[in-house]
Amino acid sequence: MTGTLYGLGIGPGDPDLITLKALKLLQATKVLAYPALEDGDSLARAIIAPHLNEPKTEIAVRIPMTVERAPAQAAYDDAAVELSEHLKKGEDVVVLCEGDPFFYGSFMYLFGRIAETYPVEVIPGVSSLTACATALQSPLSARNDILTVLPAPLPSEILRDRLRDTDSAAIMKVGRHFARVRDVILDLGLGENARYIERATMEAERILPLTEVPEDAAPYFSMILIHKRGQAWK
Amino acid sequence: MTGTLYGLGIGPGDPDLITLKALKLLQATKVLAYPALEDGDSLARAIIAPHLNEPKTEIAVRIPMTVERAPAQAAYDDAAVELSEHLKKGEDVVVLCEGDPFFYGSFMYLFGRIAETYPVEVIPGVSSLTACATALQSPLSARNDILTVLPAPLPSEILRDRLRDTDSAAIMKVGRHFARVRDVILDLGLGENARYIERATMEAERILPLTEVPEDAAPYFSMILIHKRGQAWK
Repeated sequence: MTGTLYGLGIGPGDPDLITLKALKLLQATKVLAYPALEDGDSLARAIIAPHLNEPKTEIAVRIPMTVERAPAQAAYDDAAVELSEHLKKGEDVVVLCEGDPFFYGSFMYLFGRIAETYPVEVIPGVSSLTACATALQSPLSARNDILTVLPAPLPSEILRDRLRDTDSAAIMKVGRHFARVRDVILDLGLGENARYIERATMEAERILPLTEVPEDAAPYFSMILIHKRGQAWK
Repeated sequence: MTGTLYGLGIGPGDPDLITLKALKLLQATKVLAYPALEDGDSLARAIIAPHLNEPKTEIAVRIPMTVERAPAQAAYDDAAVELSEHLKKGEDVVVLCEGDPFFYGSFMYLFGRIAETYPVEVIPGVSSLTACATALQSPLSARNDILTVLPAPLPSEILRDRLRDTDSAAIMKVGRHFARVRDVILDLGLGENARYIERATMEAERILPLTEVPEDAAPYFSMILIHKRGQAWK
């Protein structure tokens, strides 16, 4: 009997936004893995810390944040081997995933390396997408709205074209792309329809109109939401 | 002191996919409202039934499913008045919302009628979008993928154009539009990249290739997910 790998969506940041299903699996499983900075902490582990009921075998999956992809791929290869050692022995392993594992999540790299050999179960979580809309007190999409999710690293021309063809948009992973993305939005005349949000549902949550966001200060976990109908901003 | 209206995302159907935050609010609040069919049951109430710990004042919000919008608008007007009576007396009210309240949810109609007068707090939930990707065991979007969410009632030409311009797509509320939407997808040569799913995470969950879905049998809560990279379908 081999173990099962659980990809656990733990939600956007508020520890109470974990699902009952994820909480039960977290507390019942003895081997806990999570993404971590190369020389630092793990946001995912910090989110679920209030729910840890007993010591576990912990595996920090440290992925180099380099432009080339080879070092990260090698790190995922190593992590897959380490997790597989536990699965082979019949031990279940939980992997913490911020937000939802299959919505722009890095879990897919472990999934791709392990799912053909061992059983993998994925538990969906509250994504940053809906958490940001909630924080803004503004419906993300309704009725027959088209909603487009755009990663900020895309070229400006693509961002512009896709923003033209949608009712509602979420621009993800804004970070160091903020100034360029803001200019695309302002050029389209959508500045008043957009809001910037960072660290939604966490204590440090911050919401700003686009023109008030300091340049070069947006963290990776920041998002811009846009709706062409305008918004009842609070 | 007035009460607070809580728009509670209860997740896609599995009762354990409710968040801890929603569960605590549900159990602590004495007035419970939920959408219901005009002469029938409430799916939302059925989802949370295992978590009800004591009798509550229950308000079924029954909305006529007519093509004209006036009867539904009148029903939301009436519901807003009824909920406001409790809020006025200082009683909190929980409104159950399948999936996430601000992701194509009908909660926005109550939000729009009540939020200017009484405090409203929205609790995000696991959306049908990520629940379906999980059920399909297939990442919805990754890296710099563009993800487009398209309501099935949109005209075929718009669906076709938006499907051409995206990496990944979710077509919502398929229901009686199934045959037309399927033909758009097959015409684009994306049949092998698409899967149909109904009632994700519920006991009656069903997943089918497009060509195997019976015509005229898709329920309202059905979705088609497409990714141009193809998928490791199970």
